[in-house]
Amino acid sequence: MQKQSAWRFRSSSVGLIKVEPNNDDYSMNNGDFENSSSADLLPFGKSDEKTQLFLKEIFEILLKYISKSFDRKCKILDFHHPHQLLEGIEGFSLNINGEAESLEQILVDCRDTLKYGVKTGHPRFFNQLSSGLDIVSLAADWVTSTANTNMFTFEIAPVFILMEDVIIKRMMKIIGWENIDGIFSPGGSINNLYSVMLARHKIMPDVKHSGLRGFPQLVMFQSKHAHYSNKRPAAILGIGLNNCIDIEVDERGHMKPEDLELKILQSKLDGKVPFYVTATAGTTVRGAFDEIVKISEVCKKYKIWLHVDAAWGGAVMMSQKHRHLVAGIEMSDSVTWNPHKMVGVVLQCSMFLTKHKRLLESCNNMRADYLFQQDKHYDITYDTGDKTIQCGRHVDVFKLWLSWRAKGDKGFCHHVERCIELARYLVRKIKKTPGFQLVFQEPEYSNVCFWYYPPSIRNICDEVIKNEKLGKVAPIIKSRMMERGSIMIGYQPLGSKVNFFRCVISNCAVNYDDIDFMVGEIERLGHDIDM
Amino acid sequence: MQKQSAWRFRSSSVGLIKVEPNNDDYSMNNGDFENSSSADLLPFGKSDEKTQLFLKEIFEILLKYISKSFDRKCKILDFHHPHQLLEGIEGFSLNINGEAESLEQILVDCRDTLKYGVKTGHPRFFNQLSSGLDIVSLAADWVTSTANTNMFTFEIAPVFILMEDVIIKRMMKIIGWENIDGIFSPGGSINNLYSVMLARHKIMPDVKHSGLRGFPQLVMFQSKHAHYSNKRPAAILGIGLNNCIDIEVDERGHMKPEDLELKILQSKLDGKVPFYVTATAGTTVRGAFDEIVKISEVCKKYKIWLHVDAAWGGAVMMSQKHRHLVAGIEMSDSVTWNPHKMVGVVLQCSMFLTKHKRLLESCNNMRADYLFQQDKHYDITYDTGDKTIQCGRHVDVFKLWLSWRAKGDKGFCHHVERCIELARYLVRKIKKTPGFQLVFQEPEYSNVCFWYYPPSIRNICDEVIKNEKLGKVAPIIKSRMMERGSIMIGYQPLGSKVNFFRCVISNCAVNYDDIDFMVGEIERLGHDIDM
Repeated sequence: MQKQSAWRFRSSSVGLIKVEPNNDDYSMNNGDFENSSSADLLPFGKSDEKTQLFLKEIFEILLKYISKSFDRKCKILDFHHPHQLLEGIEGFSLNINGEAESLEQILVDCRDTLKYGVKTGHPRFFNQLSSGLDIVSLAADWVTSTANTNMFTFEIAPVFILMEDVIIKRMMKIIGWENIDGIFSPGGSINNLYSVMLARHKIMPDVKHSGLRGFPQLVMFQSKHAHYSNKRPAAILGIGLNNCIDIEVDERGHMKPEDLELKILQSKLDGKVPFYVTATAGTTVRGAFDEIVKISEVCKKYKIWLHVDAAWGGAVMMSQKHRHLVAGIEMSDSVTWNPHKMVGVVLQCSMFLTKHKRLLESCNNMRADYLFQQDKHYDITYDTGDKTIQCGRHVDVFKLWLSWRAKGDKGFCHHVERCIELARYLVRKIKKTPGFQLVFQEPEYSNVCFWYYPPSIRNICDEVIKNEKLGKVAPIIKSRMMERGSIMIGYQPLGSKVNFFRCVISNCAVNYDDIDFMVGEIERLGHDIDM
Repeated sequence: MQKQSAWRFRSSSVGLIKVEPNNDDYSMNNGDFENSSSADLLPFGKSDEKTQLFLKEIFEILLKYISKSFDRKCKILDFHHPHQLLEGIEGFSLNINGEAESLEQILVDCRDTLKYGVKTGHPRFFNQLSSGLDIVSLAADWVTSTANTNMFTFEIAPVFILMEDVIIKRMMKIIGWENIDGIFSPGGSINNLYSVMLARHKIMPDVKHSGLRGFPQLVMFQSKHAHYSNKRPAAILGIGLNNCIDIEVDERGHMKPEDLELKILQSKLDGKVPFYVTATAGTTVRGAFDEIVKISEVCKKYKIWLHVDAAWGGAVMMSQKHRHLVAGIEMSDSVTWNPHKMVGVVLQCSMFLTKHKRLLESCNNMRADYLFQQDKHYDITYDTGDKTIQCGRHVDVFKLWLSWRAKGDKGFCHHVERCIELARYLVRKIKKTPGFQLVFQEPEYSNVCFWYYPPSIRNICDEVIKNEKLGKVAPIIKSRMMERGSIMIGYQPLGSKVNFFRCVISNCAVNYDDIDFMVGEIERLGHDIDM
C-alpha cells in the first residue's frame, strides 16, 4: 500500500532543513532465511549455526538503528496515523493471522517495527522525562533478556538478587538514612502505591486482615502539581480520591507547608486521620522541588508518613551542585526514584526505598511457604519474593548496576549537571528570541516551559482572545513536527495556563546546537499560523 | 579469591555423569577496551565505531551463553552461597564503589553475571513455571530494549500500542467473548489485582472517590490451592484477608462448586457482599483446572464477578486437544494469561483481559489531561495511559507478537501439547521406577508432583516417622542438585503432604532423555540419604 498521510502538511515558506527518511532496506548478509522457520532455530535445529546467523541478522538491524538514533540527519519518526499502520504500510502488517511466517519475514518485521517507531534516543527528542539511548545500560538489558530469569529468589537469580541488595544499600548512604529496605518495581506509579500501602500498614496494621471497614477515614495529601500516581493509590486502596487533598503551590510551584498544615488540621476537625504526605522532587510539568525540610517538620509534628516522589528529580542526589534541591530527603519515610529518567538507564528501572526495615515484608507477605521454602540450604534472607506485591518480577537492577559501574558517581553527576546546564541555556535562548515566552520563572531542573506566539497573534490586545488563540498554537506545531519528524517536544495546559511546550532534557546526546535547532524549528513550523 | 563451597557435597557412590563447568574466559576479538571508558561510546565518542565494537563483544558473550544454555554437557548453575558472591569470586565483584570501570571490565562483568547465574533455558531446568529460552522472543526483547520506549501513548510507541490492540482483539476470539478490553502488565499478580479492582468498581463505582468506609463488607473467594496473588488484592484494596475465603478442593485439586455456594450463602447471612470469585486454570503446584462451567453457574446465580486466573494454564486455549480444560472460560468476566509461562515468551509477558469494555478506563482513569492531551492530531483512542494503574509501562507485547508471527497458532499448540505429553511420559516413568511415588492422581497439565523415598526409609512401617523423614529428603536432594548443577527442580509441602518434588515442563528444549536423566539423577543424588 502506498504511504499516504491523512493530515496534509502545510508547507512553510521558511526553508526547512532536509531530513532523511528512515529507509534501510533489509539485505541478507548471511544465509537464506526465506525458506527457514523458527523450527530451524534452537532447540529444534540440529546445530546452533542457524540460530547464530539469525541473531547476527537481528544484531545488524539493531546496530543500524542505534547509529541512526544518534544521527541528526535522520528523522525522529516517520509519522503515520493509527488507521494507516493498521491497514499496513509498504508491506508492513501488524496482523496476527495464525500462520507461521518465515524467518526472513520475522527479520523484516523487526526492521519495520523499528522503522515505524519513534527514536527516543535521538538528540532532538525532548518529549518525555525518559529519553536517550545509553549504550551500556542497553547492553545490560540485552544480557538481562538473555538471562531470562525472575527476581523472586536467590535460587534462580543469585547475582541479580544480590545486585539489588548492593544498590539499595548504596542508596542508604546517598539518601542519608541509617536503615534501608527497598525493591525495584515496574515504575514510579507502583512505587508510589507501595509508599501509601506501607504508611497505612504502619498506622493500621490490622487493615491487612480486617479490611478498612470500622477504621477511621484516612486522608492523604500532595501538591496540586504532584503526579497523578500520587493520588491513584487512594482509589486503589479504598481510601477514596475525595480523601486525597490537593495542597496549594506557591509561584515557584512548591507545595505550601502552611496550606498543608491547615488542611491537616481541617481533616482532624472532620474526624479523619491524616496519615500520608507526598513531597515531589521534580514535578512532571515544571520540574519544581517541594521544600522537604519544611514539609517534614509538619509531618513530624502530626506524626504523618512523608514520601518523597523523586521519580524524576532524584538524580540531583548525584550532584553536589544540585543536591540542595532535595535537602531534607533523609527526613522522609520513603522515596521513589526512577534511574530510567534523568540518568538515562533504559526502560524500566525504578526503585522504592524506605527507612523502615521489615515493613515491606510485614505489609506484603502472604506466607506462601509452598512457594518460598524456609528449609533451603542457603541463606534465604535475600529472597525478595514475599515483600513485593508482584510474584514474578522482571530483572531491572542490572541495567543500573552496569551503568553505575561504567560511569561511576562522576558520570551520573556529569549527566545531571549537563542536562540542567542545557536547560539554562534554553532559558537564555527563549528570553532573547522574539515570539517566545517562558511560562514560569527560572526553572530549578531541566524542564523548560514556554509559549511560542506566531506573528499573527503577537499584537492582539484582548488578552482573552489572544490566550484562546495561543492555546491552539502548540497542538498545531506539535502535529507539524510529528509529520516532519524533525523534533519531538510535548505540550500541555496547566491550571489557567493554556497549552504550552514543555521541553525536557534528560538525554546526554543533546548539545547546544540541538537547543538552537529546536527553537528555530518551532519558529519555522509555527510562524505562518494564522487563526 | 579461590572458589570454595561452604556446603560440602557428599559424593555419592553411584557414578555421576561429568558436567562441564561454565568457564569461558573472555577473550578480546576486536579492539582494546582496557583503556576505554563509557565516555568513548555514543553519544560522546566521535564516531560510532567504538560503540559497534563494544556491542559486538557483548553479542559474542551472549551467543556463547545461548549456546551453552542448550548444551546438556554444561552445568545449569555454578552454585555459590550469597556470602561467597558478596565477598567476590575469582575477581567478580558485585560492589559499586563509585569509580568508573573500563569497558574491558564492563565486558568481564557481563560475562561473569551470566556465568554465576542460572541457565533457565537449559533442558534440565524444571524449576519454575517459566523456563526455556525462545530465540525469536529473545530477539524481540533485544529489539524492545533498543527501541527503549514506553507504552503510554500512540505518540511515542505507535507500533507497539497497535500491536497490543491487535493481540488483545485476537484474544477475544480465542476466549470466545463478544467484546474485549485488556492491558499487558508486569505479571499475573498485578493482573489479578486488576480483576478485583474492576469487580469492585462494577459493583461499587463510588468507592473510587468515596473510599470503602460506609459500604458493606465485600467478600471474595478462591480455591485453597489458588495462587497467593489471588488473595493479596484483599490486603491491598482494603477488603482484608479475613474476607477472602478459601474454598475446599476435591481429590483432583478442583474447587468444589457446592462449597463455594455454601460459603457465598454464609457470607450473605453474615450481612456481607460476595462479589468476586477466582477460578484457577492451572494451579501453581498441581496444575489443576477448576471447573469453570459449574463455577460460572454459581457466579451467575449470585451475580458475582468470575475471574479466571489462567496465568499458567491459559496456553491450553491454543490446543484443540486440551482446550476442554478451560471449557466455559467465555462465561468469565476476566482472565489473566502469562505467555511467558507455558508458551515460552521471555520474561515478562502477561495479559489482563476482560469482556467489559471501558471498565478499565472508568476504574483507573485519573483524567490527567495535562499528560494525556485530548487535542492531538491523531486518533487518541489507542492511547492506553489512563486505563492502567501504572504510568510508564514496559513494552511487553512485541515478544509475544513476534513469537506468534514466527510460530503461528500451530507452533503454540505444538508447544503445549508436547510439554503435556512429556509430563505424561514422566508420570509413566515414575510409576514404574522403584522409590518414586506420585503425590496426586493423573495430572491434568504439565506439573508432575512426586516423592522420592531413599532405600533407607522405604521399609519403615510407622507412617508418622516415615513421613517425617520423607519431608527432609527433597531439601537434601535439592541442595545436592544445586551444588552439582545437573538438574533444577522445585519442591514444597502442600497441606498435609510433606515436601515433594514438583516437576514443571514448559521448555520445548526438553526431550524424553532429559526426563529419564532427571529421574535417574534424583536417584543418584538421593539414594544414600540415611537419617
